[in-house]
Amino acid sequence: MRYRLTIEYDGRPYVGWQRQNNGRSVQAALEDAVAAFTRETVAVRGAGRTDAGVHALGQVAHIDLSRAWPADTVRNAMNAHLKAEAVVVLAAEAVGEEFDARFSARERTYRYRILNRRAPPALSRGRVWWIPAPLDAEAMHAAGQALTGRHDFTTFRAAGCQAKSPVRTVDEVTVTRSGEEIGITVRARSFLHNQVRSFAGSLKLVGEGRWPVGEMAEALEARDRTRCGPVAPPDGLYLVAVAYPDQWIDRDI
Amino acid sequence: MRYRLTIEYDGRPYVGWQRQNNGRSVQAALEDAVAAFTRETVAVRGAGRTDAGVHALGQVAHIDLSRAWPADTVRNAMNAHLKAEAVVVLAAEAVGEEFDARFSARERTYRYRILNRRAPPALSRGRVWWIPAPLDAEAMHAAGQALTGRHDFTTFRAAGCQAKSPVRTVDEVTVTRSGEEIGITVRARSFLHNQVRSFAGSLKLVGEGRWPVGEMAEALEARDRTRCGPVAPPDGLYLVAVAYPDQWIDRDI
Repeated sequence: MRYRLTIEYDGRPYVGWQRQNNGRSVQAALEDAVAAFTRETVAVRGAGRTDAGVHALGQVAHIDLSRAWPADTVRNAMNAHLKAEAVVVLAAEAVGEEFDARFSARERTYRYRILNRRAPPALSRGRVWWIPAPLDAEAMHAAGQALTGRHDFTTFRAAGCQAKSPVRTVDEVTVTRSGEEIGITVRARSFLHNQVRSFAGSLKLVGEGRWPVGEMAEALEARDRTRCGPVAPPDGLYLVAVAYPDQWIDRDI
Repeated sequence: MRYRLTIEYDGRPYVGWQRQNNGRSVQAALEDAVAAFTRETVAVRGAGRTDAGVHALGQVAHIDLSRAWPADTVRNAMNAHLKAEAVVVLAAEAVGEEFDARFSARERTYRYRILNRRAPPALSRGRVWWIPAPLDAEAMHAAGQALTGRHDFTTFRAAGCQAKSPVRTVDEVTVTRSGEEIGITVRARSFLHNQVRSFAGSLKLVGEGRWPVGEMAEALEARDRTRCGPVAPPDGLYLVAVAYPDQWIDRDI
């Protein structure tokens, strides 16, 4: 039986989503929880490979279990074995074998949080990017519009990005201020490595007035990694949600 | 020169606001920061003595320094020395000698956060009270209204509370739901020890349907500590703000 899992995690204690040799990963924490509960060694396949320190409010993954457990039992038993981790299963749903957390995904939504005030964060340390100088969120929003649509995003992907093509279609870039906090929301079917953090780092330059609004479009058109602003730290990045075609909605069993 | 400090902290690493022999306190962290910056040993006097694990978004304290530093220098220098702590100074303002963070306070606002969903918290662990069973926030709000006004709050104060009188005037108790989260806002000139956590623990019983709405008024009238619900954990409690008479507003120098 295949299960779709919706997962929340604090990225700080982990080397990232993906199982690695250099430390604890979110994937390993989940795989250990499945093994403790089912006595099966299973792969937990995620929709997005978040980097070290990046958080998730709604990561999605799938697992295949040999027994048809009630979906709520899968969630509750995994959470019981995740008590020592900063990872929880928000929901588990039985799905058909054709559901694949990564390849069925229609859209991913990320949010980048900036704390824009003179004092550093106490309660949100490691959860936001602290920028003490005042940022112009409206200018950031205006500049962000150049990033929507189908483009070659060579400027905004990590040097080590392994995607075959640098072309992606970005559906939304929204920058809003709420008091001391600036939020950047980015939606796309899929992303290049470090794409959202590259956007955030460049938008910060616009917010500071160091880049005119129009420089974002020029940097994009240059297709040149050296034209990107300094990549933003992982602290402020959240994988908010992964959307799937309607056929996988409301299949809670 | 006297300075008013507005302070944010994560209560988890601390034994509470007040300096104690059994561990690190918020007050000691601040006093050490003042000493590192000014080479003076000063007392940091707070508006409210929050317990271990209780957080603050807007604690207020005052300090007396022998030199008239620019207020922004006080804030920035203290924050530079607080880097290893989960405490920050949001604002520093020069004030007159008649200002006393504790005795001049006109009103204190606390908020209690409950995460009300089946899955435990990952990102907000230690910052909310996790209650998996569905709570009726409207019933909690209705019951909370019995707690407003001037009353003998013997039922809702800790056995060890050292206040001379159990009589307090509560100006507001508001319970609202926002998605998975329930927030309880309580305002009063001053509070008894554990009063807000006693309110929250009793309101939870109403939310679960274990107490009818009317039992809150009965418990209050009984003036009997054994009629209080189990005291809520510190994790969800935040000292949000301390208000002062208008004469101390906008004296930022």
